[in-house]
Amino acid sequence: MELLDKLNWRYATKAMTGEKVAQEKIDRILEAVSLAPTSSGLQPFEVFVVTNQEVKDKIKPIAWNQSVVSDCSHLLVFAAWDTYTAERINKVFDHTNDVRGFTNEGWENYRQMLLGSYPQKDAEVNFQHAARQAYIAFAEAITAAAFEGVDSTPMEGFDPAALDEILGLKEKGLRSCVILPLGVRDAEKDWLVNLPKVRKSKKDLITVVA
Amino acid sequence: MELLDKLNWRYATKAMTGEKVAQEKIDRILEAVSLAPTSSGLQPFEVFVVTNQEVKDKIKPIAWNQSVVSDCSHLLVFAAWDTYTAERINKVFDHTNDVRGFTNEGWENYRQMLLGSYPQKDAEVNFQHAARQAYIAFAEAITAAAFEGVDSTPMEGFDPAALDEILGLKEKGLRSCVILPLGVRDAEKDWLVNLPKVRKSKKDLITVVA
Repeated sequence: MELLDKLNWRYATKAMTGEKVAQEKIDRILEAVSLAPTSSGLQPFEVFVVTNQEVKDKIKPIAWNQSVVSDCSHLLVFAAWDTYTAERINKVFDHTNDVRGFTNEGWENYRQMLLGSYPQKDAEVNFQHAARQAYIAFAEAITAAAFEGVDSTPMEGFDPAALDEILGLKEKGLRSCVILPLGVRDAEKDWLVNLPKVRKSKKDLITVVA
Repeated sequence: MELLDKLNWRYATKAMTGEKVAQEKIDRILEAVSLAPTSSGLQPFEVFVVTNQEVKDKIKPIAWNQSVVSDCSHLLVFAAWDTYTAERINKVFDHTNDVRGFTNEGWENYRQMLLGSYPQKDAEVNFQHAARQAYIAFAEAITAAAFEGVDSTPMEGFDPAALDEILGLKEKGLRSCVILPLGVRDAEKDWLVNLPKVRKSKKDLITVVA
């Protein structure tokens, strides 16, 4: 399967050259983000694509000074909804009705069920749930980058509150949860590039209940 | 990009025929799960592959009675570590040293940093973090299924505590967080199969910081 080849090719790139990645490759990676499945189709997150060098340089110190943050071509920031609100849920359901061109009783009942549950929950519980959906899209971005031959560095090592401040996310009701520098590996400076990929044995990962 | 074709092909299948999926397809889907990137390479989850019909039938009522749970071929259950322990972290680092055939100072310092932080954290915080990693693997499973032409249903709609009880996960220090029935769509019974895929507009999803 081609997917397995691509997943074997990718690795968490530790040094990048600063070279720019072609915009059409970035567009296809973002299309994969858009196509990622999410709970109830809510897509409860936004993605910030940082190409501005000053902004990247400002983020670097709040991301353990990792060089890929400033030496990447595009820095993707995945920011999840800080909570689920009736307004946000209704916007998704209304948009779906617009696209499909009809309303459906089952779908409307489902909307009411979500409206009767999510907005009443604790914001932190909702954010954690939204963040998990963002991780699905994050995984698709990593995978799509590999298909495009674009190097990437999945990164949780940053100060989310500081990043929210830099990008003005709080005012938008968003909280950053994970970032993905995209760029071109600097093989000479990257200590990880030639190390073999290590994974748990299948017996430690998989249990069959037959 | 072939990935985009596959992501467009897949949908959250609402009815399955009960037909069996070939084992080699399941094996490749599980290989994609294994190759999913995770924070510090810890792979803090296990996957249970349920093919036993009685067990599937027992899970169905605690999963909103959704028919795909019993009518799927293989039911994947993603169960994250209930917390990070020194033992779990050391096992991963020791295994990595075994595979690579050497120890490395930077890597050993990194081990000490994780040992000095994760095990001291609240178990719920650690579980939430582990669950996010499981979602990356979950996304790769969904993607790999699409590459194999296998239908799947990403599902959060189940009672995790009841599922943990059925599979005996608590005793293993695991908590179920998401499930994925794999099988063959029953197009005649599936209300969703012919509906167009709906996604947010790009302007609501993507912000460029240039």
